[in-house]
Amino acid sequence: MYPPDNSENLGPYSHTKVKRLADRAHYDRDSIYRILDEGFVCHLGFIANGTPYVIPTGYGRRGDALYLHGASANFALAESKKNATVSVTVTLIDGLVLSKSAFHHSINYRSVVSFGTVMPVEDVEEKKLALETILNHIVPNRSNDTRPPSRSELKATRVVRYEIMEASAKIRIGEPKEEPEDIELDYWSGQIPIEWGYSDPIPSGNSNGKLPDYLVNFSRPANS
Amino acid sequence: MYPPDNSENLGPYSHTKVKRLADRAHYDRDSIYRILDEGFVCHLGFIANGTPYVIPTGYGRRGDALYLHGASANFALAESKKNATVSVTVTLIDGLVLSKSAFHHSINYRSVVSFGTVMPVEDVEEKKLALETILNHIVPNRSNDTRPPSRSELKATRVVRYEIMEASAKIRIGEPKEEPEDIELDYWSGQIPIEWGYSDPIPSGNSNGKLPDYLVNFSRPANS
Repeated sequence: MYPPDNSENLGPYSHTKVKRLADRAHYDRDSIYRILDEGFVCHLGFIANGTPYVIPTGYGRRGDALYLHGASANFALAESKKNATVSVTVTLIDGLVLSKSAFHHSINYRSVVSFGTVMPVEDVEEKKLALETILNHIVPNRSNDTRPPSRSELKATRVVRYEIMEASAKIRIGEPKEEPEDIELDYWSGQIPIEWGYSDPIPSGNSNGKLPDYLVNFSRPANS
Repeated sequence: MYPPDNSENLGPYSHTKVKRLADRAHYDRDSIYRILDEGFVCHLGFIANGTPYVIPTGYGRRGDALYLHGASANFALAESKKNATVSVTVTLIDGLVLSKSAFHHSINYRSVVSFGTVMPVEDVEEKKLALETILNHIVPNRSNDTRPPSRSELKATRVVRYEIMEASAKIRIGEPKEEPEDIELDYWSGQIPIEWGYSDPIPSGNSNGKLPDYLVNFSRPANS
């Protein structure tokens, strides 16, 4: 059911076999990691008192695991640990797709839907590593240029390791689909690309005023 | 437990009472509608075979309801209808927040976490209205400038009405928080705003070539 560690793929397994539009599906680690590395807010799905919850939260990736964090009283993380399996989804929206027919309108996107287990991170060294991983995932190189967490801050932070057991990526790119009989219709059709970018950093009133190199022309992930 | 129709608020009720950082929480319809109207991809959470799923999907809003659609064999919509309660979350990311301490790094965001019920839409007139609502939510004014769905396309499309029973919005804006003892530390601190924008539309090979007025300087929602 689940991948051996040496597999290049994280699916398809029982939860992740994409049945519709299967040509959009990818199961290889490379495709999945790219999306997880470009995103930095995931949607965590878990069950509490019989009800499904979907909570957005930041993350950092380390291999097949995502680190998540919150306050020690964080409801989503506490409840997730009680679930045998939780779901984590990351979605990147790339554009609107306008067809000549209402039916074939679509969205260009890249998403990862994954299933796995949530393990508490109690060991102080792994906790520090996890928090560094999250911070550097969201702002590459930042952990070396900020005050590290104090002992009481570490205590006040709950960290969990979400281990991906299976995952699928879905990717839609390119032009709208048209029915052959619609091609000559006199409607505009095409794509409206969505730009997702970072503006110039705005220093706070307390900033030292000197923008560090890693924030000049800021983009992320670091290697893109 | 749930709001009377004439209440201005959609919470807090049993699932949506925000316990931590409660100053970020909003329960009024106006705050919640604004976020639902700016977003157009939600994350639908449901339980299938005991496992929580989180699936991204487009939507359109009508009052307290969101219309969702998919192929007639769509797994998420079919399973959601079997759930007494599902969850729908919409998240907008506005910026990165860099504090002098690792601990106070944050993300500026606006999100709505909601709970409700999924009802099938079988009536042809409501189905047409629902599909128009979704299309015009994502691309304002588009439904009048495209071929409407045929009878067989309507048949091939599954539509559901998600009725919000309770919802909460969470909004974080502005500067990083600092501990008083960190203010003099020699680190850069501030915000990196995230810009989410639409580029110039790219016509497809089959387009009629004339960009309609409603796509010139495209932005959405229509009234923003």
